[in-house]
This record gives sequence, C-alpha cells and structure tokens, in this order.
Amino acid sequence: MKKVVIIGASDTGITAALRIRELNKNLRPLVIADNNYPNYSICGIPFYLGGRVEKWQNLAHRTREDLEEAGFDLRLDTRATGIAPEQKLVTVNPNDGEKKKITYDELVLATGARSAVPPIEGIHLPGVFTLRWMDDCLEFEYFLTEEDVEKALIIGGGYVGLEMAEALTNRGLAVTLVEFEDTILNTVAPELRRLVQEKLEAEGIQVVTGTAVEKIAENGGSLRISGSGGFRDEADTVLVSTGAEPATELGREIGIETGKSGAYRVNKRMETSISHIYAGGDCVKTPHLLTGEDTHFAIGTVAHRHGRVIGSNICGYEEEYEGALGTQSLKLFDLVVARTGLTAEEAGEAGYSSVEVEVEVPDHKSYYPPSYDLRVRVVADRETEKLLGAQIAGSVEAEVSKRIDIFATALAAGMYMGSFNRLDLSYTPPLSSPFDPV
Amino acid sequence: MKKVVIIGASDTGITAALRIRELNKNLRPLVIADNNYPNYSICGIPFYLGGRVEKWQNLAHRTREDLEEAGFDLRLDTRATGIAPEQKLVTVNPNDGEKKKITYDELVLATGARSAVPPIEGIHLPGVFTLRWMDDCLEFEYFLTEEDVEKALIIGGGYVGLEMAEALTNRGLAVTLVEFEDTILNTVAPELRRLVQEKLEAEGIQVVTGTAVEKIAENGGSLRISGSGGFRDEADTVLVSTGAEPATELGREIGIETGKSGAYRVNKRMETSISHIYAGGDCVKTPHLLTGEDTHFAIGTVAHRHGRVIGSNICGYEEEYEGALGTQSLKLFDLVVARTGLTAEEAGEAGYSSVEVEVEVPDHKSYYPPSYDLRVRVVADRETEKLLGAQIAGSVEAEVSKRIDIFATALAAGMYMGSFNRLDLSYTPPLSSPFDPV
Repeated sequence: MKKVVIIGASDTGITAALRIRELNKNLRPLVIADNNYPNYSICGIPFYLGGRVEKWQNLAHRTREDLEEAGFDLRLDTRATGIAPEQKLVTVNPNDGEKKKITYDELVLATGARSAVPPIEGIHLPGVFTLRWMDDCLEFEYFLTEEDVEKALIIGGGYVGLEMAEALTNRGLAVTLVEFEDTILNTVAPELRRLVQEKLEAEGIQVVTGTAVEKIAENGGSLRISGSGGFRDEADTVLVSTGAEPATELGREIGIETGKSGAYRVNKRMETSISHIYAGGDCVKTPHLLTGEDTHFAIGTVAHRHGRVIGSNICGYEEEYEGALGTQSLKLFDLVVARTGLTAEEAGEAGYSSVEVEVEVPDHKSYYPPSYDLRVRVVADRETEKLLGAQIAGSVEAEVSKRIDIFATALAAGMYMGSFNRLDLSYTPPLSSPFDPV
Repeated sequence: MKKVVIIGASDTGITAALRIRELNKNLRPLVIADNNYPNYSICGIPFYLGGRVEKWQNLAHRTREDLEEAGFDLRLDTRATGIAPEQKLVTVNPNDGEKKKITYDELVLATGARSAVPPIEGIHLPGVFTLRWMDDCLEFEYFLTEEDVEKALIIGGGYVGLEMAEALTNRGLAVTLVEFEDTILNTVAPELRRLVQEKLEAEGIQVVTGTAVEKIAENGGSLRISGSGGFRDEADTVLVSTGAEPATELGREIGIETGKSGAYRVNKRMETSISHIYAGGDCVKTPHLLTGEDTHFAIGTVAHRHGRVIGSNICGYEEEYEGALGTQSLKLFDLVVARTGLTAEEAGEAGYSSVEVEVEVPDHKSYYPPSYDLRVRVVADRETEKLLGAQIAGSVEAEVSKRIDIFATALAAGMYMGSFNRLDLSYTPPLSSPFDPV
C-alpha cells in the first residue's frame, strides 16, 4: 500500500487528505502539523477577534471528530525538520517526544506561509503581534482580553490589516493604520482605494499613508511608535500585518526549485522539481489564468483547489490546476470591494494596452428602496476588447461579491466585451435592473 | 432624412429610440403609444401595489422631461390601427383627434403583450382585474383604496400571480391563490415549487392547485367563485394572472409571419418577414441560446436587449440578437428563487438526456452568523457533462440572483461541468466559502 505523508494541516493539506480518502479508501494518508489546530479557517481570524464569531472553535472547518472519522492519521504538535528524497524519508520532531524518521511514497508540502517580519526595531517586544495561525490569534485575543488595551496601531493596509482595523474598532479600540505605500489596498484601482480609506476614516480609524514605521519602544506600560517623516504615535498594542512569506525552508534545503519570492515552482499537476514531492497552497507559485505568469496567490480558495488537484493525482486521476484570476472580496463595515483578473496597472505590467471604464449605478431599480450605488470598473484590452479584469465596490446589501464572480466566470471563458454585454442575466426589480449593473 | 416610426413606448420601443439617438443625432424617431404611461417599469407594478414603492410615478424608468430631452417625438394616447407596407404608411388614431396616415422608412413593432383572458364566466364583472399596463395598475389600486376590500382571490400561480400574492398580503388582505396545474411556478423543479408553496402558506396565503376556476358571480357586494372539483370561495376582488398573449394583430393583418403562440418571427437582426419592419419585446419569438428553438420570452431584460439591437441595425450598425437563456429571479417575502437555462423537464423536451443534482449548503462560512441555506440545482447533459441549466433558492440575504448569473455566464460561454467547477470565484468568510456554493 502506497504511503502518503502530508506536511501541513490547513486548507491544502486537509483537502488533499480528504480527496485521497474520497478516491481510494485503501490509502490512509498521514498528516503532520506543527500546531494543534488542524483545518482551521485562518481567513476567519479577524471576524473572531472582532466579535462576529462567538467561539474560536467555530473557526474549524471540521471538528476533530470529523477529521478522525475521515480515515487519515493526524499527528499534531509535530514539526517536520528534514527530507531525504533519495531514501524517501521525512524527519519529524514531536514537541513531546523524540525525533524520528518516517518513510513516504508520495510527499505533500502544504506548509503555507508565515507572517513577514519587517526590519523594525523593537518588533519582538511584548504587545507587538503578527497574525497568521490560530496560535497567533489566541495569543492576541488573550492579550486584548487580559490587558487594559484602548488603542491599537496596525502596520500594513492590505486585506488583513484592513479587516483587523474593522475588528478592533468593533471591539471598541481606537485604531491607527499605518501604510508604507502612498495608498492602502493596492490590489484595486486608486479610485476605489480612496473610497476604502474614506470608509475607514468615517468609522473613526486614523489612516496614515506613505510612512515607514522604524521603531517601537516601551514607554511605561504602553508602546511608543516612530517612523519616517517625523511620524510619532502611542498605542497599547501593535499589530504587524505586512504580508506573508512562503514557508519553504524544508524544500529549499533539498534543492526544490523556487521562484523569486521563495515559493516552490510546481507544474500543473502540482508536482515540485523533485519527483514524488507535491506542493500546494500559500507555499507555491501558480500561473495567472490570463497572463500565464507564475504568481503567488496566498488565498484560501486557491489553496483548497490545490489540495484537491494533489489528491486526485496521487490517486492516479489526472487533474490539472489551470491557474487563478486573483479573485478576492473584502468586507469593511457595510462596504464590499471585490476584484478579479487584472487591474489597469497589472495589465500594463503584463504588457497589455488596456482601457478602463468606471460606471456608478444603482444596484437595482431605485424605485424599490433601499437601493445602493455600485461602482463597477472594467478593464479590457484596447485593441481586441478582450475582458481583462473588473473591480466592484458597493454596499454589503448589493451582492457585490457574487457580481464579481460573473466577471470571473466570463474571464475564465475568455470573453470579449461584446459577448459579455449580451449576457442574459437575471432581473427582478428588488434585486437588479434590466441591464444589470455589471 | 430617414423616418423611423416606433409603435409602443415600453421597454423595447423606448430603448430602440434612445439607441437611435445615441448612434445618429440626425434621426428623430416618432414613438406612438396607445396609453399615457411611456417607459414605465411594468415589472414593478406588484411592488407598487404591495406598498414597497411609494408613488406610482417612481415606476417610470425616465421622467417625461428626460424623454423629451432625449430628442425623439412621443405621441401618446394614440392607437396605431393599420399598416400599409407597400406605401410605407401607418394609420394612427389619437383618442382626442382624427385618424390620419403617417409615412415611415423603418417601422418598429413594439406592441408587447396583453393579459390572457381565460374563458371564465363573469370574468368582466366589476371587481375582477388583470394586470399588465399602468392603466390596469392604477385602476386596481383605486379599487383597493376606495372599496372595502378584505379578501382577494388570485387566479394563476406564475411569477406575477405569486408576486401579487405577496403584495396583497403585505397590504393586509387575506389571499387565496388558485392554480390550474398541479403545482405553482412550473418554470423551476418540482422540489423548489414545493418550497415556494410552503413559503406562501407560512405567510398565511391559501394555495389551491389542480383547480380550474369556471365561474365568478356577484353576491351582494362581494364575488362568489366556483371551479372544478367542487371548488367554492368568496372574495372582494379577483385578480386574473394567467399569462400574456403577444399583441400582434397589426402585423398579422398584413401577413407578417408568426409562430404558434401568435408572436412575430424575426431574424437575428430583429427584422420581421416584411422588409423595413422590425419587431421586438413581448410580441416576438427569439431563439433559446441553448436549444436554438424559437421561444417566447416575455421579460424585461430580453425586451430591452431587443430594443437596442433594433436601434443599432436601423442606424446601420450590424448587431445580432443571439438568444436568451430564460434567466429569471423571483423574490417572495424573504425567499429568492432564480433560474437560468433549462430545467430537467425542459432539457428532456429539448431532446437531452440530462442529469440533475441538488445540493443544500450554507451561503457562506456558517461560523459568521447569520448564514442561510441555499438549495442549488444543476442540470447537465448526461454524456458530455455540458452545463444546461441551474436553479437556486435561498434567503434574500444570500445573493441568490447574482449567483444564478454565474451560471448564466457559464451557459453563454458553453461551459462543461469540469471547467465550471474549477472557476476562481471570490471568497471572504462573511459572504462566501472557499468552494463557493455554486
């Protein structure tokens, strides 16, 4: 019987194990994790910390019992410390036991990413946190509950930084968000970034852009933060949310090929450059569906899909991962911003000469109150009019995130603006308009 | 200068006129309507009668001023009574003036449909209404406001009958709905019809199926209704909502080809069988995008699209109408039901051997409350796995109507289940799941 070892028990690892059990009941994968929280929805952490999810246990995609019933072995609190690909051995080091070597026939690296730690003086002081895994989440929650925390400073204005700004505001904290770049959320068009910044400010969050935090210092129970351009602030806690780096040491040590970001290079079957070693999730590069270029998409949807493709191939079912479109949505208070495909800026970098239009329209017939304005931006190739991307911003009531999926579907089908405009979409006055906003 | 005459001032007629003005400012179309309510959203009537739209004037897509500024001529309260295609003349008969003949170079028939009037004894009694145009709407509203109306009986369990059952319930009336067929809403799968019927009943509406109303009689201020199987009921008003018939007398008199339902046959440029006469909207047949068969889609989205294609072609811009998918959504209280493409039943009639699956899933991660169950049904060709249709039912909070549009987009692109399942759709815990419910 083939022995499958999976390192990592988050989206890719567990999905791969489940897929294997679904396709071949004779295989019993072993899943190793260096923590005690297998199969948690780490995307849900900001919603737990913001009080919208009652118990942290609810963040589990599946309970421990569900996982045990699924028929694979789970070894928690166990770190994989080395691979010997010629002997097909993995060295594992349980927190409460002795190092040992185990054999594999097929190995899956699903080690994800870790929080980037920028070179800021004092970044390891108590009261300074990063957020990626459940351990981080529980430590931060404990600090917020036990200490007298009134004011937070967040470094980084990407998805997680913004979600945490809302979460901490919802907990009643005063929040300052500091971004190194000149604008926050640079994955959407500048016009929508402004909208997001205005929303944050309207909710009482102070947003500081174009500023590098350089130093964090203790100051009699609170933290003093200073940065470029004379930036000075105080806070009871600092959350560092400056992105993630692929966790790929294990593979790099044995010479698995990686891209510039350090993520593993894989083929469409999710195989690395060393045979019998697969990789997927936040630790790999995958092709962009439009440009074909290797891109690092560290997002749950992609990680789940990778796990499935890996499971299928291990069981002998040919399945290829074609690529992603960078489809993402973000809810901030009552505003939703979603994107798919390329922004005008990204299209330019990919060598397209693109044209971008924005329309502002009510989400449905305005005579049926309340209706909400939607801002829809569409990017297309200037010459062929091939659809390249779209972004939508609007009320949480306005079905923004599934409207972006109409574009994602059209992009995957390689549609041109002409056919896209002729789509037969649904209409009922309370929910849409005869020419749908998209 | 080419003279364009458009008969009908609803979705197709006005959209055609606006498109012509957009493409060629030298043309000044003449739009003739037999009523005084040009460019109203007749789909919105149930929402006005149910009290969700404040003033009937709000149902106008555009104000009279907007229409005047658009640069076409509007002759209201004027009936077109005959066409002489060889001389290119239309006879018009204003309500307050004399018949006269006017010339055209291009004629557009956008006369829509009228309410079907089933052969029921007493159907023309006071207190019995049909609903199609604004005149009908205002007459019914006047009756409901001025008379002492406590109980309504609705004949017909299609879209409008169901929307009106909600509307009249919202006004505080007791409502009975009588349907001739064994189930209501036969445009979706039987399983979802049951769900809709349960929703109506939970809201206090009495639903009677498999019953033909045969007679309506006056009974001292109220109406007595009787029908097959010993059906007996009383009501203060009866609303007859048994579908619509294409209004095509004008064209049939001069020999324009029609289909079995009496709707005009048109080509992809929306031209009828007589040259220089276009037709669009509820009075024509158009191809089903999947089966290619001529189908009668009496729905606003299609009518708008027709008007645009007609306008383009009149101005010399080649534009073809490819067909529709029968995409529709219906909101009933807090339930939304949406469909696109073919149901299993329709697929069978079209000669497909189809397979249908239903899944019941939360709309987004259930740890972020509230989440709602969605029922998603997908129909595909058994052999090729080509996607043929989909239906979704779920809470009004669950983005049902834009989720159906993901399927509509995939259908228009001719997708197979394999590629559909690999789509890169958006995910954020409050709004979706890593594998989106669709």
